[in-house]
Amino acid sequence: MTVRLSRRYAFAASHRLHSPALTEAGNRETYGKCNNPQGHGHNYEVELTVCGQVDPVTGRVVDLKLLDEVAERHVLAPFRYRNLNEEIPAFRNVVPTTENLGREVDRRLRQAWRGAFARGEPRLEKIRIHETDRNICEVTGAE
Amino acid sequence: MTVRLSRRYAFAASHRLHSPALTEAGNRETYGKCNNPQGHGHNYEVELTVCGQVDPVTGRVVDLKLLDEVAERHVLAPFRYRNLNEEIPAFRNVVPTTENLGREVDRRLRQAWRGAFARGEPRLEKIRIHETDRNICEVTGAE
Amino acid sequence: MTVRLSRRYAFAASHRLHSPALTEAGNRETYGKCNNPQGHGHNYEVELTVCGQVDPVTGRVVDLKLLDEVAERHVLAPFRYRNLNEEIPAFRNVVPTTENLGREVDRRLRQAWRGAFARGEPRLEKIRIHETDRNICEVTGAE
Amino acid sequence: MTVRLSRRYAFAASHRLHSPALTEAGNRETYGKCNNPQGHGHNYEVELTVCGQVDPVTGRVVDLKLLDEVAERHVLAPFRYRNLNEEIPAFRNVVPTTENLGREVDRRLRQAWRGAFARGEPRLEKIRIHETDRNICEVTGAE
Amino acid sequence: MTVRLSRRYAFAASHRLHSPALTEAGNRETYGKCNNPQGHGHNYEVELTVCGQVDPVTGRVVDLKLLDEVAERHVLAPFRYRNLNEEIPAFRNVVPTTENLGREVDRRLRQAWRGAFARGEPRLEKIRIHETDRNICEVTGAE
Amino acid sequence: MTVRLSRRYAFAASHRLHSPALTEAGNRETYGKCNNPQGHGHNYEVELTVCGQVDPVTGRVVDLKLLDEVAERHVLAPFRYRNLNEEIPAFRNVVPTTENLGREVDRRLRQAWRGAFARGEPRLEKIRIHETDRNICEVTGAE
Repeated sequence: MTVRLSRRYAFAASHRLHSPALTEAGNRETYGKCNNPQGHGHNYEVELTVCGQVDPVTGRVVDLKLLDEVAERHVLAPFRYRNLNEEIPAFRNVVPTTENLGREVDRRLRQAWRGAFARGEPRLEKIRIHETDRNICEVTGAE
Repeated sequence: MTVRLSRRYAFAASHRLHSPALTEAGNRETYGKCNNPQGHGHNYEVELTVCGQVDPVTGRVVDLKLLDEVAERHVLAPFRYRNLNEEIPAFRNVVPTTENLGREVDRRLRQAWRGAFARGEPRLEKIRIHETDRNICEVTGAE
Repeated sequence: MTVRLSRRYAFAASHRLHSPALTEAGNRETYGKCNNPQGHGHNYEVELTVCGQVDPVTGRVVDLKLLDEVAERHVLAPFRYRNLNEEIPAFRNVVPTTENLGREVDRRLRQAWRGAFARGEPRLEKIRIHETDRNICEVTGAE
Repeated sequence: MTVRLSRRYAFAASHRLHSPALTEAGNRETYGKCNNPQGHGHNYEVELTVCGQVDPVTGRVVDLKLLDEVAERHVLAPFRYRNLNEEIPAFRNVVPTTENLGREVDRRLRQAWRGAFARGEPRLEKIRIHETDRNICEVTGAE
Repeated sequence: MTVRLSRRYAFAASHRLHSPALTEAGNRETYGKCNNPQGHGHNYEVELTVCGQVDPVTGRVVDLKLLDEVAERHVLAPFRYRNLNEEIPAFRNVVPTTENLGREVDRRLRQAWRGAFARGEPRLEKIRIHETDRNICEVTGAE
Repeated sequence: MTVRLSRRYAFAASHRLHSPALTEAGNRETYGKCNNPQGHGHNYEVELTVCGQVDPVTGRVVDLKLLDEVAERHVLAPFRYRNLNEEIPAFRNVVPTTENLGREVDRRLRQAWRGAFARGEPRLEKIRIHETDRNICEVTGAE
C-alpha cells in the first residue's frame, strides 16, 4: 500500500514574464500583458506531496512540523512578498513562469531534503504550484 | 524531471441521461431524476493537463495562448450553452454521462492536437471533467 | 444582538433565457448564447438566511431539520433536475433569469413560511442564488 | 422587494505598501514584509453588487453585457497585470491597500456610472475586493 | 462612504450538541446524530468584519497586526484543538451551536475591543462563523 | 483509454492524536495541540476514485447509486458525528491520523468491494482524505 501526504502552503509574490532570449516583440507576442515592464503578481499556492511508509508509532508518513519548517525556510520565507525576477537569484536570467517556479521550488527542496529527513525518507514526490485557480504546474521527482 | 501544466476552463450546458439500450424503467432505475425527459444542466469545468519539456527560451511547457485557442475552438465554443443530447452529434446515440463527455472531449482534442502542436508536443496527458464539485471524471491518454 | 443563520443547498437544472416580449433579434441581443433554443443548465446554489432570537433551550435561531424540510419540499425537489422553462409553471411566461428565479424561490418560501414556522419566526430575511461562481442574485424580504 | 445582482471579476496585479507619510521604520512596522521595496502581488477578485428593479421584459436588474463592459473598461483592463503603485496615477501618493483599492474602484465606477446606465439605474451599491481568501474589503455607496 | 474590512481565520475544535434543558429523547429529536455522546468536530472559520474610517496615513481601516493579535489571543488560541463543551467555561451549561459559538466569540471580542483599539475604533460590526461550507452563523453588533 | 470516476463525500468527526507507544512528552512533542486530551474535530472529505471500462449501455464506469450506498454504509454512517478514538474499534490502539484514517477507509472499502461489485469491477484505485483544506492524505491500491 502506498500512502501520500500532501500539504498546501500559500505566499504572495510579484513577477514579470520576459525572456532575455526573445526580442521585445517576441516577448510581447509570447507573454502578452504578463510581459508588462512593471510586473504583476499572484497569490501562489504550493502543494508538496511526500510518499512513504506510515510510521507505526506516530501514524504518520512525515513529521509535519519538520515538513512545515523545511517549506518555510527554503521556499516560503525567501519568496513571500518578493519580486521573483529581482530578488531570487535563480530568476535573474530565467523566466519566472509557473513551470520554472516549480522547478526552482523542486531544486531548493531536493537540495535540503537529505539534510532534513534522515535517509531522505519520506520521498518528495510531487510539487504543485497554483499560480491562479486555473493555471497549475506540477513537477515530479528529479531523482 | 517531468513537468505538467494544467489549465481549467468552464462552460454551462444541459443534458439528459437516457440510454436507447435501456427500457423506460431501466433508464429510471439507472439514472433516477437525471433521466427526467426535459433535461437539466451543469456548470462544467474542464481541466486539461499537458506534459512535456520546458522550453529553455520561453520557460513554458506549452504555448498557453495556443492551448486556450484549441480548447475554445474544439470544446468550449461548441459545448457552451448547448443541449449536449440534441446539439452535439456524438451524443445522439451515446449517453452524455461525465465519462462519455470526457471521452468526447478527449477525442476532439486528440484529433486537433497534431495539427495545432508541432510534432504533437507537449503531450495531452489527462482530461478532467467536473460535473459538480463532487462528481469528477478523468480520461487518460488514448495513445 | 441580531443573529442570522444561513444554510446552503444545491440543485442542478436547465433553462433558456428567452423573453416573449422581445423579438428574436432582441432576445439574441439581450441574452447572447444563453438564448440558444435548446437551453443549457447550471449547478445552482440556494442560500437561505433567517434572522431571529436564539432559543435559550436549543441554542438555535431555527429548527434546522424543519428548515431543510421546507427547502426540500418547496424549492429543491420541484426544481432538481428540471427544465425551469418547461416544468415550472411560474416560468411559462417569465424569463428564468437568476433574478426571477430568486423571486420565485422567495414567493414559494414566503407562502409556506407561516404554515411551517409558528408565528413566522424566525424571519426569512434573504435568499441568495448562485447561478455560477461569478453570478449571484440576492432577494431581500418582501414583507 | 429588493433585488441585488453581484458579479465577480478577477485580475492579477502587483503593489507595495509604503506610505510617504511614514518613516522607513514606521513603514516597516506598519506593513511588515508587505513593505519590501521590490513589491509583491495578488490575484485580486472584484465583486460588484447592483441593486434595483427587475425589468419586466428582460427579467434582469442590470444589463450584464453592459456591466461587464463597464467593469472591463474602467477597472479590469487598466489594472490587469499592472504595478498599482507605478502605473495607476491614483496610487502615486496613496498607499494601495485593499481599502484604498476599493475606494479607487468605487471612484472610477461612480464616475462612469451615469454615462453608462440611463438615470443611473440600477444603483451601484457595493464593491468587494478580495486581496486573498482571507482579506476582504467592502466599500458601500458614496452617494 | 463606508469601508469595511473582513478577515478570515480558521480553527479546528470538537463539540457535542446536548441541552441540559431537554430530555434524552428531546435532545436526540432536536440534534439528531450531533447529539452523539462522544462528540464530533469541525474545521471552523471565523470572519470578523470591522467598519470605520480609512486612516489617511496608513490607508487602513484597521491595524491588521493588532486585529490578528486580538483574534488569536481571545478566540483562536483558546478554541483551537479544544473540546468546546468541556474546555470553554461558557459552554458548560450552554449548547455550543453555531449561534451560541458566534455569541461567545462576539462577547469575548467586545470585552477586549476597547482595551485593544483606542476609542473602540474601528467598530466590530459583524462576526460570521462557518461550521461547515453550508452552515453559517452571523452575529451583528451588540452595541 | 483509462477512465476514472471520482466522487466526494463529507462527514464531521472528532479525534485526538495520542500514541500509546509514546510518552506524554513524546506525544506532546509529536502532535502539539492535536494531542490535547479532550480532542478536537474536523469536517473531513473523502474522495473515492474508481477506474475501469465505460459500460456501453449506461455510459458509466460505476453504478453511482451503488457506490454511494457502499460509501454510506461502510464509511460515512459509521464515522459521521463520531469520536474516532472512542467509537471506531480500529482506532483503539492506532492513532487516528489522516494517514491511518485513509488506511482504515481503504480496509473497509476493499473488504466490502467484491461483495458489492460483481468481479470487483470497477477497481477502487485511490482514496483521498481531506482533513482540512491544506492537509490531504492519499492511499493507493492495496492489491
